Amino acid sequence: MVSVRVPATSANVGCGFDSLGVALTLYTTFKFEKLDSGLEFVGFEERFSNKNNLVYQTLLTTLKKLNKEISGVRISIENDVPISRGLGSSSTCVVAGIYGAYLLTDTPIDKQEIFTIANEIEGHPDNVSPAIFGSLSSSCTTDSKEAVTVRYEVDERFNFLALIPNFETSTEEARKVMPKEIKLQDAIYSLSRIGSVIKAFETYDLELLNKVMGDKIHEPYRKEIIHEYHEVREICEKIDSSAFFISGSGSTLMNIVSDTNNIEKIKTELAKLKYNWQAILLKVDKEGTVVLN
Amino acid sequence: MVSVRVPATSANVGCGFDSLGVALTLYTTFKFEKLDSGLEFVGFEERFSNKNNLVYQTLLTTLKKLNKEISGVRISIENDVPISRGLGSSSTCVVAGIYGAYLLTDTPIDKQEIFTIANEIEGHPDNVSPAIFGSLSSSCTTDSKEAVTVRYEVDERFNFLALIPNFETSTEEARKVMPKEIKLQDAIYSLSRIGSVIKAFETYDLELLNKVMGDKIHEPYRKEIIHEYHEVREICEKIDSSAFFISGSGSTLMNIVSDTNNIEKIKTELAKLKYNWQAILLKVDKEGTVVLN
Repeated sequence: MVSVRVPATSANVGCGFDSLGVALTLYTTFKFEKLDSGLEFVGFEERFSNKNNLVYQTLLTTLKKLNKEISGVRISIENDVPISRGLGSSSTCVVAGIYGAYLLTDTPIDKQEIFTIANEIEGHPDNVSPAIFGSLSSSCTTDSKEAVTVRYEVDERFNFLALIPNFETSTEEARKVMPKEIKLQDAIYSLSRIGSVIKAFETYDLELLNKVMGDKIHEPYRKEIIHEYHEVREICEKIDSSAFFISGSGSTLMNIVSDTNNIEKIKTELAKLKYNWQAILLKVDKEGTVVLN
Repeated sequence: MVSVRVPATSANVGCGFDSLGVALTLYTTFKFEKLDSGLEFVGFEERFSNKNNLVYQTLLTTLKKLNKEISGVRISIENDVPISRGLGSSSTCVVAGIYGAYLLTDTPIDKQEIFTIANEIEGHPDNVSPAIFGSLSSSCTTDSKEAVTVRYEVDERFNFLALIPNFETSTEEARKVMPKEIKLQDAIYSLSRIGSVIKAFETYDLELLNKVMGDKIHEPYRKEIIHEYHEVREICEKIDSSAFFISGSGSTLMNIVSDTNNIEKIKTELAKLKYNWQAILLKVDKEGTVVLN
């Protein structure tokens, strides 16, 4: 049996739409056991306990790439990353499936290789990179379709307060509400901020972060499809918010707090809202995916 | 008499349109002497030797901000930065004018304060920041109209080969050819590359730089108004080019070479073109503006 732990991630950090992602200390653990035959799932919701399971499909795709086969497999999950909430649960499945294929066939782990495969399957290097490598990453696809990612450190003092509601947003819908063309000025708005955002994360400069975390590319559209976005933002900004952004394509909202003593106050206010908002304090994960056994 | 040296700059570095700028080891030196009355210019072209002179106008604006006055002034220039070629000659004048006002009135130099004033006058923080602070900078204007800039280091091994033609491009025309709206995908193209570009400059990763220096925001339009852009690019890419981009809004083209031995070969090929292209090897300037006396 082999076992891997994959961190949750928050993509589209601030002005870094489809570019910046950060790994967080919330994890899903996957176990893979070879079977003589057949396919078994343990711990998955029933809707995912079948051949279409993303972990299993990724495992198969990766085995084919590696030119390897297995007779059967049992895949177990212990999931702390909520599904379809913008915290990278799909990425954890993709990354785990690739690791599973590597580990079950005794293929030496090469994170760069795994990143390339993950990107081929997932399509967004900024989603999978932080799950694999940890920390903050800036990722792109080159003209020759190569996935490229660079790592930036995030100061350990950062407090990411994930505000996770009891409703999903579909990534598909979240993509659909966005325009195909944007104002040049709105592109420059993000482009000119991203260097400052990276520097603020490296140096724990909350004041700088607060000044530059705006986005005009996706947030203006997506906030309208996340219930109570405005109310939650207002609560955070009233109490403690150095930066506030949609995690991935939502529905989770991320609030960076300067003082963890304020978290209870935020929770108290959130409890008065119509929807149920869970607030979880997360730190940056620096390791990315790790093999546990 | 007071004297300041201001470096040339290259703005719009790669995918960093209106965002990234780098200071280079090509300088203009300005001298300011108090006179009992009147206004004198030494070393300026005749078309600039009058009250509308950008250095003088900036000096006046800054004096007003400082609540100070001078009776008269002689401004001298020793100019190595070619005018209207995309190497920041206007920025050198703006920065020098502000320094002149500070120095002539014994106001203590505060680069952050000078940056704020320079941005108010010039309007593009990415143009003036590297001239003041040196090195590579990422700059933006915040929602409250504050100019913000962060510094990134550039490895000293970088060779910037400035290819300066014997024709100007007007910044106004270069702005006019650009569309007001762009494809979302073209914005993401730049946005997702900028973190890699910064990392490549910090670590002298020429291979990475080469993969990520593309731009779809201004280069596709502006290259059409720079004579022989395609020919010059072809020459560089055939001989030695880790990155090739329009400096500022042109007409200078910047080519990063890995081996300075190749410069003569590039010059030989450039000499066969219709326009006259001067090739000057520059390094990153790390100091920005310095007071000389």
